Amino acid sequence: MSLIVQKYGGSSVADPDKMKAVARRVVETARQGHRVVVVVSAMGKTTDSLVALAAQIAPSPEPREMDMLLATGEQVSIALLAMAIQSLGHPARSFTGAQVGIFTDTAHTKARIRKIESDRIAQALDGGHIAVVAGFQGITADEEITTLGRGGSDLTGVALAAALKADVCEIYTDVDGVYTADPNIVPDARKLPRISYDEMLEMASLGARVLQSRSVEFAKKYGVPLHVRSTFKPDPGTLVTMEDRGMEQAVVTGITHDRGQAKVSILRVPDRPGIAAQVFGAVAEQNVVVDMIVQNISRDGYSDISFTLARGDRAKAVAVLEEVARRIGAQGVTHDDRVAKVSIVGVGMRSHSGVAARMFSILAKEGVNIQMISTSEIAVSCVIEDKYTELAVRTLHEAFELGKDRSTA
Amino acid sequence: MSLIVQKYGGSSVADPDKMKAVARRVVETARQGHRVVVVVSAMGKTTDSLVALAAQIAPSPEPREMDMLLATGEQVSIALLAMAIQSLGHPARSFTGAQVGIFTDTAHTKARIRKIESDRIAQALDGGHIAVVAGFQGITADEEITTLGRGGSDLTGVALAAALKADVCEIYTDVDGVYTADPNIVPDARKLPRISYDEMLEMASLGARVLQSRSVEFAKKYGVPLHVRSTFKPDPGTLVTMEDRGMEQAVVTGITHDRGQAKVSILRVPDRPGIAAQVFGAVAEQNVVVDMIVQNISRDGYSDISFTLARGDRAKAVAVLEEVARRIGAQGVTHDDRVAKVSIVGVGMRSHSGVAARMFSILAKEGVNIQMISTSEIAVSCVIEDKYTELAVRTLHEAFELGKDRSTA
Repeated sequence: MSLIVQKYGGSSVADPDKMKAVARRVVETARQGHRVVVVVSAMGKTTDSLVALAAQIAPSPEPREMDMLLATGEQVSIALLAMAIQSLGHPARSFTGAQVGIFTDTAHTKARIRKIESDRIAQALDGGHIAVVAGFQGITADEEITTLGRGGSDLTGVALAAALKADVCEIYTDVDGVYTADPNIVPDARKLPRISYDEMLEMASLGARVLQSRSVEFAKKYGVPLHVRSTFKPDPGTLVTMEDRGMEQAVVTGITHDRGQAKVSILRVPDRPGIAAQVFGAVAEQNVVVDMIVQNISRDGYSDISFTLARGDRAKAVAVLEEVARRIGAQGVTHDDRVAKVSIVGVGMRSHSGVAARMFSILAKEGVNIQMISTSEIAVSCVIEDKYTELAVRTLHEAFELGKDRSTA
Repeated sequence: MSLIVQKYGGSSVADPDKMKAVARRVVETARQGHRVVVVVSAMGKTTDSLVALAAQIAPSPEPREMDMLLATGEQVSIALLAMAIQSLGHPARSFTGAQVGIFTDTAHTKARIRKIESDRIAQALDGGHIAVVAGFQGITADEEITTLGRGGSDLTGVALAAALKADVCEIYTDVDGVYTADPNIVPDARKLPRISYDEMLEMASLGARVLQSRSVEFAKKYGVPLHVRSTFKPDPGTLVTMEDRGMEQAVVTGITHDRGQAKVSILRVPDRPGIAAQVFGAVAEQNVVVDMIVQNISRDGYSDISFTLARGDRAKAVAVLEEVARRIGAQGVTHDDRVAKVSIVGVGMRSHSGVAARMFSILAKEGVNIQMISTSEIAVSCVIEDKYTELAVRTLHEAFELGKDRSTA
């Protein structure tokens, strides 16, 4: 008898009918002889509605009260899901983060999990219940309600699975697994049966939206196998787990892309110590997260600095940098919203040389100009003009032989 | 510096604008130098919507999960009200029932308060905060979320006022106080500046909807002065408090009526010991609460038994009584939905004789036939044909000189 943690996102429980479908799936798992803990998000767009309601009340609500408000969304879901399970004839109990004992730090709206008490859930499971747990929320040592920020419900699932030493944490979502590339762009994209934590981490941070880096990191740290699968189909999805031999044979596992970026350049920056710190310090003060940074070598005592960031932050960053540029004597600031980042990811890169070069030559052959490059141990990313995104992804997918009729690369 | 508990009902916080108006009122009270604890209900029809949502999921949800669901309504309100207060520049903190430590028994959906811990609120007040507390909800010793049933938020306010030894518990509502009669029926009705707990209890149970008996009983037991007043007007309302000399001068304080009743009669019941127990035992088994009961003296070994009950329960009661009538050999069961109960209430009745007789003769003079009578120490109630309700209430109001140009009776 195994212990399974199942996590269902907001779109999986968006209305009463979907809630009942989830209940059937949960009960089916329990009737197969498994002990089941279900983690659930707020229904559909509930969280957005609550945020909008708060905005009508106060321009910048205190984070403590925001958490008090947002935590209700998941509490509604667990009560309803427990009712739906019970009405199918299976005992169930719902638990808030506070009732479970999901203890976090005091960083309201983006709290980090410190400790999970598993006694109460273990007791419910021992009593033959399905335990239904509110995702996204926790409690501080002082009994203050906290929320875990974006991707918080996934994190609740993974952390509970770790605390309960579950056999697997199943992440149910509206896609049925992790693909070699976005199937909307590459019809030939293949669902990966397995992928390593490290590859999943790279893919998550490089634009694959199925999982957030934070949950994958947690799963990796505690060795929790993640199974990403569809709420609406019975087929197995993608297992995210430790690296194994089979995985290492593929040089490239997947192609990701991110079209939500913008590129900002500061031109002719005087090449003095501390200049980069001034530039990126000013950006960080605006709470803007910078992604790739490229600084060319100096010519005549000047160099250009370019970086990418989320497009929504671009205006804020440019405004502050125009100030900085004047102050440090740079020529000016330019920006480009029509860029995309395309990446190849694969643990096999560790033992194969020349993968980056191969990527560049594939893109060059199609006439795609590369504006910026960044590499990690198991990924290579290129910033290109946005209009070439589909072409680049499709060509790389084919060249690295990731399609359905794949032979070993 | 006094400590004031203010309770606002769902209609007072039905939308963001009303919520902000409540916040202004609360902050104004605090700026007058008072320490303020606010108890708040779920916004508008939130609780009804949640009940409807549960009904879509499961035909008869477990009470534990129902409480988990319903408690979110008040949690939304406290978060938003705290935000609204903070945005006016006054520190505030919201608290769920669990965070306060409002401990109840385990009777989900109708829990009774066992104990209130006031440390955390006292601490917030000492820190200069307005404490915003979720009404209607509590927690068991095992950390299960409970709700207090109908009128639960009033009860939270009164119980907190008792625990904190507050100077007054202000109940804000959409009427501006307790009236000598329903102003919709009696234009001349007068707002009572003061009324005793006992009179308020009688009036509440006899049809005045402004407060529920349960909260008044609690206030009486702990000597908490209640101030019933309007959310939307600044004028003082009605103070519900201990009896004092001034009150005793009036024989009748108010006229109430209840049009939500029905009358059921069982005809020619054999006059044997244990028959009444069989009749009312069968009704009680249907969870039907019986109000007035009249059994006439026996004639030829038979008597008629009549009683009143909430109209919504009538069909259920008649169905079960037709069974009982057959079994015990009674002639049959009749019912009448077109009845109303009209009552006079006043502590002065204790020391004045003939008040009931005067009521009967006033009604008789108008041609109003009295179908049933019941009396308590400080109230007399008559069941009459529904169509005479307005006439009876107006005539009694005038005859007992309760109007605005009142002279001492």
